[in-house]
Amino acid sequence: MAYDTSKWQQHINQGLADLDLPPVPATLYEPIRYMLALGGKRIRPLLTLMAADLFSISDIRHAIPAALAVELFHNFSLVHDDIMDEAPLRRGKPTVHKKWNANVAILSGDNLLIMAYGQLAKCPSDKLPSILETFNAMATHVCEGQQLDMDFERSPTVGINDYLHMIQLKTSVLLGAALKIGAVLGNASDVDAQYLYDFGVNVGIAFQLQDDLLDVYGDPEQFGKQRGGDILANKKTYLLLKALETADTETVSELHDWMKRSDQPQIKINRVTAIYNSLGIQQATETMKRFYATQAYAALDRIPCEKSRKLPLQTMAQHLLNRSN
Amino acid sequence: MAYDTSKWQQHINQGLADLDLPPVPATLYEPIRYMLALGGKRIRPLLTLMAADLFSISDIRHAIPAALAVELFHNFSLVHDDIMDEAPLRRGKPTVHKKWNANVAILSGDNLLIMAYGQLAKCPSDKLPSILETFNAMATHVCEGQQLDMDFERSPTVGINDYLHMIQLKTSVLLGAALKIGAVLGNASDVDAQYLYDFGVNVGIAFQLQDDLLDVYGDPEQFGKQRGGDILANKKTYLLLKALETADTETVSELHDWMKRSDQPQIKINRVTAIYNSLGIQQATETMKRFYATQAYAALDRIPCEKSRKLPLQTMAQHLLNRSN
Repeated sequence: MAYDTSKWQQHINQGLADLDLPPVPATLYEPIRYMLALGGKRIRPLLTLMAADLFSISDIRHAIPAALAVELFHNFSLVHDDIMDEAPLRRGKPTVHKKWNANVAILSGDNLLIMAYGQLAKCPSDKLPSILETFNAMATHVCEGQQLDMDFERSPTVGINDYLHMIQLKTSVLLGAALKIGAVLGNASDVDAQYLYDFGVNVGIAFQLQDDLLDVYGDPEQFGKQRGGDILANKKTYLLLKALETADTETVSELHDWMKRSDQPQIKINRVTAIYNSLGIQQATETMKRFYATQAYAALDRIPCEKSRKLPLQTMAQHLLNRSN
Repeated sequence: MAYDTSKWQQHINQGLADLDLPPVPATLYEPIRYMLALGGKRIRPLLTLMAADLFSISDIRHAIPAALAVELFHNFSLVHDDIMDEAPLRRGKPTVHKKWNANVAILSGDNLLIMAYGQLAKCPSDKLPSILETFNAMATHVCEGQQLDMDFERSPTVGINDYLHMIQLKTSVLLGAALKIGAVLGNASDVDAQYLYDFGVNVGIAFQLQDDLLDVYGDPEQFGKQRGGDILANKKTYLLLKALETADTETVSELHDWMKRSDQPQIKINRVTAIYNSLGIQQATETMKRFYATQAYAALDRIPCEKSRKLPLQTMAQHLLNRSN
């Protein structure tokens, strides 16, 4: 990305480095240091800074605490989700509950959430109530989304709309809130802040659909994961749910049969992919992804400021939605 | 208690009832409803209201959201601690992770914490930064205390001072913060708010020492638990640590031997209690408890307001420290 996002990245990384975590209890703070050092693209805090800059923040550094709050919250949710999903790896490294244990992961996750609020408390006091309100609503939605995701694993009847609702809560509202909080700090009007929220939420849904697509149609070399992981895990992705909704009774039975089997992984991946292909699932998902992307850009368009100023956010969205990894 | 705390209790219970939790996802909100319905004496939110009233709050109802935040935080910490401690029961009912499962308990605990911040956000905006700061510091301390408590379980060398530090973090700072936040809402000076915080922290430590005493020297009928539960669980209470610090080498060995045994529970309780008796542990603990109680009352004394106005807090402290259950 052009623009000076690299400078902002530095601000964010510096801010994380400056958190100045106490040395003890080591069992509480080591996992937090470990998690924050795993890196990642810091997209969410970057969105906060980009949103603040889109409007009229006097000094971008005033938005750093809020950006850090967003990143800390994201890490809190990763640590706790990894316990619940029994995920062994995060960014190629052992997850906190694997490297330490579940108790350590619960508590260091809790503290990451509290640290997020610690950063929010540094926001300008006149903006604090509004920022807290946006953040709290987002945080509750993320919990609801994670719970729905877990509920869906055990539910035999998950519809496409249930799924879209779930990923909106679990994944997208964080992007929306990251942007909205930045907008508030940049003195945006309520209406414009809401447009930016809508932009983020729609980008987020499109992003998740892209993620579902990459599992089956991505280039494993670039994606960095084996193709078909979601199929093997019987994950109720948009692709699977759409296939179950579109297929004839016989094919639905076959899909259900494969979901019960784990004896022939490669054949399972190939066969389910062939079913997806025969039903045009890739195209249907691409269409849905484009629908949300279009909604996102339309929301951004509605913000009455110079087009060139929106370029960084547009570029970021394109980058997220056309990624191959 | 005299005074109109019963009216305040009602305010708190009404506030909890008015939280108006959404019906879905039921797996997220049912455990929260369940937990809040388990009851309890609501001492912590009551402290917030009492502190606000001690100074000059115009309408006590303005302190209700902060009081609810304190109670929601307390419940968050109970739900997560119960997972970590593998506790089967809470107030005689199955704990959330037993009634549902650990994942449900993690996530509904998370949401209780977020809901606490949702209430804080309703505090008057001019007081919000200060209240958030106090609350966040407390919340982090509580996490640190819980982590230390877990660390101590596995540590062979826990000293009396380590223990006092741990219970201050895990238990007492919440009482201190509940009071301090009330004081801030009541327009107390910084100095007076700090005195009230010190009062709460010292009451909290004395309270925990009382808890340790009750396990061994309480009347099981009144205490509602079997005597000696801490001894059977090899819990590093003030009593045990003091005994290990005071006893001669031979008795220390005997205590360590008993800590490794679980074959003769009643004999273990009797013998460890006899050792405590021979070492004067009950008196030593009572002395320590009185020390903290005295510190607490001294802090309260320093607040320059009419003595009679402090009576409710004094009565509450006496009630907490002389309880037999």
